[in-house]
Amino acid sequence: MKVAVIGTTGYGGIELLRILHSHPVFQIQSIHSTKGEVPIWKEYPHLFNINDQVLEVINPEEIAEKSDLVFLATPSGVSGQLAAQFAEFNIKLVDLSGDLRLKNTDEYTQWYKHEAAPKEIIDKAVYGLTEWRREQVAGAQWISNPGCYSTASLLGLGPIVKEKLIDPSSIIIDAKSGTSGAGRKPTRTTMHAEMSENFKIYKVNEHQHIPEIEQQLLEWNEEIKPITFSTHLLPISRGIMATIYVQVQKGVTLSEIYKIYEEHYQNDSFVRVRPEGHYPAVKEVCGSNFCDIGLHLDERTGRLTIVSVIDNLMKGAAGQAVQNANIMTGLDETTGLTFIPMYP
Amino acid sequence: MKVAVIGTTGYGGIELLRILHSHPVFQIQSIHSTKGEVPIWKEYPHLFNINDQVLEVINPEEIAEKSDLVFLATPSGVSGQLAAQFAEFNIKLVDLSGDLRLKNTDEYTQWYKHEAAPKEIIDKAVYGLTEWRREQVAGAQWISNPGCYSTASLLGLGPIVKEKLIDPSSIIIDAKSGTSGAGRKPTRTTMHAEMSENFKIYKVNEHQHIPEIEQQLLEWNEEIKPITFSTHLLPISRGIMATIYVQVQKGVTLSEIYKIYEEHYQNDSFVRVRPEGHYPAVKEVCGSNFCDIGLHLDERTGRLTIVSVIDNLMKGAAGQAVQNANIMTGLDETTGLTFIPMYP
Amino acid sequence: MKVAVIGTTGYGGIELLRILHSHPVFQIQSIHSTKGEVPIWKEYPHLFNINDQVLEVINPEEIAEKSDLVFLATPSGVSGQLAAQFAEFNIKLVDLSGDLRLKNTDEYTQWYKHEAAPKEIIDKAVYGLTEWRREQVAGAQWISNPGCYSTASLLGLGPIVKEKLIDPSSIIIDAKSGTSGAGRKPTRTTMHAEMSENFKIYKVNEHQHIPEIEQQLLEWNEEIKPITFSTHLLPISRGIMATIYVQVQKGVTLSEIYKIYEEHYQNDSFVRVRPEGHYPAVKEVCGSNFCDIGLHLDERTGRLTIVSVIDNLMKGAAGQAVQNANIMTGLDETTGLTFIPMYP
Amino acid sequence: MKVAVIGTTGYGGIELLRILHSHPVFQIQSIHSTKGEVPIWKEYPHLFNINDQVLEVINPEEIAEKSDLVFLATPSGVSGQLAAQFAEFNIKLVDLSGDLRLKNTDEYTQWYKHEAAPKEIIDKAVYGLTEWRREQVAGAQWISNPGCYSTASLLGLGPIVKEKLIDPSSIIIDAKSGTSGAGRKPTRTTMHAEMSENFKIYKVNEHQHIPEIEQQLLEWNEEIKPITFSTHLLPISRGIMATIYVQVQKGVTLSEIYKIYEEHYQNDSFVRVRPEGHYPAVKEVCGSNFCDIGLHLDERTGRLTIVSVIDNLMKGAAGQAVQNANIMTGLDETTGLTFIPMYP
Repeated sequence: MKVAVIGTTGYGGIELLRILHSHPVFQIQSIHSTKGEVPIWKEYPHLFNINDQVLEVINPEEIAEKSDLVFLATPSGVSGQLAAQFAEFNIKLVDLSGDLRLKNTDEYTQWYKHEAAPKEIIDKAVYGLTEWRREQVAGAQWISNPGCYSTASLLGLGPIVKEKLIDPSSIIIDAKSGTSGAGRKPTRTTMHAEMSENFKIYKVNEHQHIPEIEQQLLEWNEEIKPITFSTHLLPISRGIMATIYVQVQKGVTLSEIYKIYEEHYQNDSFVRVRPEGHYPAVKEVCGSNFCDIGLHLDERTGRLTIVSVIDNLMKGAAGQAVQNANIMTGLDETTGLTFIPMYP
Repeated sequence: MKVAVIGTTGYGGIELLRILHSHPVFQIQSIHSTKGEVPIWKEYPHLFNINDQVLEVINPEEIAEKSDLVFLATPSGVSGQLAAQFAEFNIKLVDLSGDLRLKNTDEYTQWYKHEAAPKEIIDKAVYGLTEWRREQVAGAQWISNPGCYSTASLLGLGPIVKEKLIDPSSIIIDAKSGTSGAGRKPTRTTMHAEMSENFKIYKVNEHQHIPEIEQQLLEWNEEIKPITFSTHLLPISRGIMATIYVQVQKGVTLSEIYKIYEEHYQNDSFVRVRPEGHYPAVKEVCGSNFCDIGLHLDERTGRLTIVSVIDNLMKGAAGQAVQNANIMTGLDETTGLTFIPMYP
Repeated sequence: MKVAVIGTTGYGGIELLRILHSHPVFQIQSIHSTKGEVPIWKEYPHLFNINDQVLEVINPEEIAEKSDLVFLATPSGVSGQLAAQFAEFNIKLVDLSGDLRLKNTDEYTQWYKHEAAPKEIIDKAVYGLTEWRREQVAGAQWISNPGCYSTASLLGLGPIVKEKLIDPSSIIIDAKSGTSGAGRKPTRTTMHAEMSENFKIYKVNEHQHIPEIEQQLLEWNEEIKPITFSTHLLPISRGIMATIYVQVQKGVTLSEIYKIYEEHYQNDSFVRVRPEGHYPAVKEVCGSNFCDIGLHLDERTGRLTIVSVIDNLMKGAAGQAVQNANIMTGLDETTGLTFIPMYP
Repeated sequence: MKVAVIGTTGYGGIELLRILHSHPVFQIQSIHSTKGEVPIWKEYPHLFNINDQVLEVINPEEIAEKSDLVFLATPSGVSGQLAAQFAEFNIKLVDLSGDLRLKNTDEYTQWYKHEAAPKEIIDKAVYGLTEWRREQVAGAQWISNPGCYSTASLLGLGPIVKEKLIDPSSIIIDAKSGTSGAGRKPTRTTMHAEMSENFKIYKVNEHQHIPEIEQQLLEWNEEIKPITFSTHLLPISRGIMATIYVQVQKGVTLSEIYKIYEEHYQNDSFVRVRPEGHYPAVKEVCGSNFCDIGLHLDERTGRLTIVSVIDNLMKGAAGQAVQNANIMTGLDETTGLTFIPMYP
């Protein structure tokens, strides 16, 4: 099966290449970028002698002719326009940007600060939170791949929200991400000298993943109220931890909660619910497609602390994208994704 | 004025030496440790040619004779015993450990997992959260210096709790610390290869600073309920950020909140309330005695996010200790503490 | 084919598990340690739900019965003793320690500061610098896997030394390693708070890899004189860079040098000689078995600068060990080793 | 005494502000930049409530009228032009750029790749390697402050070169710097995600500090031949280590070498020659104006390894600039510079 990657030179795109290189079924037919016809190893020297492909211009018609599936690893604002160009062709598509995630276009404009893609384009895409949407993903032609913070938060919250065991107005997510999440465009904020030995909070209650998270939470439980959501920058390249706080309904015990999480995720290869008293660290998933979850119920307060960690470039981007692509094309979802975390 | 430092070879002790070296009034009379008579520069080579003092054994009587004030930078469990030995002598004392912080000895035993110091020893000490206790500090002979997490949390919460503008059961503190906070004893958890590119949560709702924080909160507002408190390890040496979430009373506006914070801290040299829309980063206080505070009220949820950052070894330990010692001895509290943050 | 791993809980051992997990031929029959019968995931939580094996005691006879090959990832001093116990059994063995590397036992004692293994034990092992010793490795029953610094240095120096194009007394190696190279035993030196934002030199001209490097250099060119060798600790987990300086013979040009390197390594999948003007960075090989080499000839001085980088746990330890095991057992040497560097 | 800082928003400029803030004699009269009239704390929030100065445009005449001394913390290419504008005014000047360092303008153009400043402008400035040029500095009106790599290298090499105890063609400098050395302009190379867990070599034998170092070495010993010089980027904000290799003359012993270094630097407050067997680490000088030196003579090779570390923003830039300014204005050279290294 042949795949194309557009937006290859971003960190999401380059992580797609890492996965696809050893994928037993998908073959990288072509890689694309607006950078001009440069060998990819000149942009990313770690690929020297591994990948000798040259970046190509973006010609949707030609791509659709030659490939079975296209990954859009392009930024929000660009992906929507590209998707529209692919709409007339018969090619599967997985978009890693935020452009196809929000069904409400006004909400998109409000949080992303620019125009949304046309509604009919957005509606073509299934929101690919794989563990919660396998059947829809299997039947989809287009996937809108979830955001990195959203994936960590939603996998952490899913079972307890779906089972309606929490106060619906009590959700607080304190999220922390490595700097690769900010993309590859050089900025003052993400310079090494500024981030080394540093830790920053940013976009307090203003991150564009908020409406995406709420949209999914409301699908699980329509009584869910707006969430509190803080994002922080960690002095690491990769990895996200979402520390989530919710008030559980009176009388709910930790063993009930464990039961729910374990049942919900029992068949999910990439979600690991850690045993009681164990909490995942970011590096324990990095390089892999795992989302690890730890749970603590404080009897003094009745508050549940959920710890959810992912590699933002894997389960938070390229890994989940390939997982969805696997399902869309009839493969086992773990195909080409059985990386063990790289530790230490 | 002459001061002695006990427990010099820990990170708190060595930071005391950094401050005292340029303090215009306090002179380091002697430094003490159980390590034997070693020149301090052999333990800490950065002090070569700067400090030629030799570590001495701990003889309270002799120390009390030669010095006006003693800093105990010893671990919890040790400080209480040392304090008891100093009780009969007329020397001022600042203890950086947790041993004299909790007025309730049962609570101490429950959280610290070993016996508390005798009640009468504990009661000799004033809890030295400087900005909120200046008069008591001024009259004290003994100070129990607050914990690092406690300092960041309490300075962040003080005004809004004192003014009773929040739901008393809504306090959630998501705290993150650099690894120097874990002390200088080598452990698996704090090895570089384990922490580099990592981020860990630990002691979820089980950290021994919880009762210390609650004791102070209850003094401000006796209706305060148990807090939710998570601690995380950052891959940096120094620095703490506490991201704090509270539900404000209906109708309270952000400008009212700012007014309260600014009034409470208007005469406090070391607390900087950042302007609206600005949030402090950890590195913006490192090396200094500042506690910087940022505030965000989310109108969608009525929840206030308080961001409080300190250098755990300065305002969180040695800096606040010297600030208290200054006040106890009649000096201006900023004496010897006017370090600018080291950036970048 | 069945393999056993002894010394599993060190960083070399755990990297062997990462590789072997996806190796298509080798199966991990058993894992061993002196830690007692603990599930490996309890020591390394990133293996939760991935590897459910339990650490076993070390019984050479039983291991030799059940497995075809054993990896000793045990420390120097331990490996030699274990190897002696395996000598009477018919099992292939790859030792990752320094115990079987030096043919001269007096030299071993001098540099390692303890007794060498018996000479006949040492002589059973072939020094497994794979790219330069494939035939011997193919016929070997025992392999002594090269040290991490040695691998980076020797692959960088091999072609130019072998071709006798340098002043034999001019070799200077300035080597830098991540902290995982210091092992998993907690020490002051390798604590995060000590290494973060730091860079240290250690064992100046005293590192135990010096005699190992010289032994191989002398085999290539018996006129080689003692080398200058400095080791530094980088504030990263993984990765080694050796910056090597040699005086080339008069008249030798950079294009001749390139020709030699490219010819020597033309069939070596894991050595990448970078094009002129390009120099490898440590992160461009991390997670992979590559050794990347950059070359610069300064016409002002006639000195060649050789830059050689590896992942110390891969090509510098577990990766090369599996590469050797592949060859010993008749497999293609790249089997199970086609990891792409993880970037960023 | 009043001083002005031009180029305040670079890392060198901001470090000048850190020093000058607590300098007992120099007062910051004005700060300048091409950024427009912005309060400096908006560019550097760590200065909030500490420094309320506003950046001003650069008007040499006005600056010369109001201040006694001006620091140029502007980039190479800019400083030369500014210096020319100050030439007609009677103001002391310390330039931190490379523009006034090379007496040979052709050499400047060759290494800096753009036109040199006019020869008469360059000749007005004394090269301020303080420890070796105090008398000239004392009498100077203009100082050209040495480069960061140059300072570490020259202080390490000075005594042994001056005493002519080495083979003049044997100097190799393997230098490593933190990323603040690359300046504050965002670039791909210095992004956090690219540098974290990384280590890079760059400008192999092509760094513009080479002619500066050679110019000084030749002044000490005219037989010195071109040096080999490699620069590497460390994943830390601050700090430089130069590991230097030289061949000593036959018969020279380590104790003779120590004697020479200790004699040369016996009255130098900021140079610390470490005792035999001790080597400085980068963090042991960070935040301070020290240059620490370690020495090792390998008897097997007759080669001396010199380890020299500085904080690139202090002794490598702003610290040495203030040290020179102190001397130029008749102050003790340590005035305002007695910072202890910040450790850990």
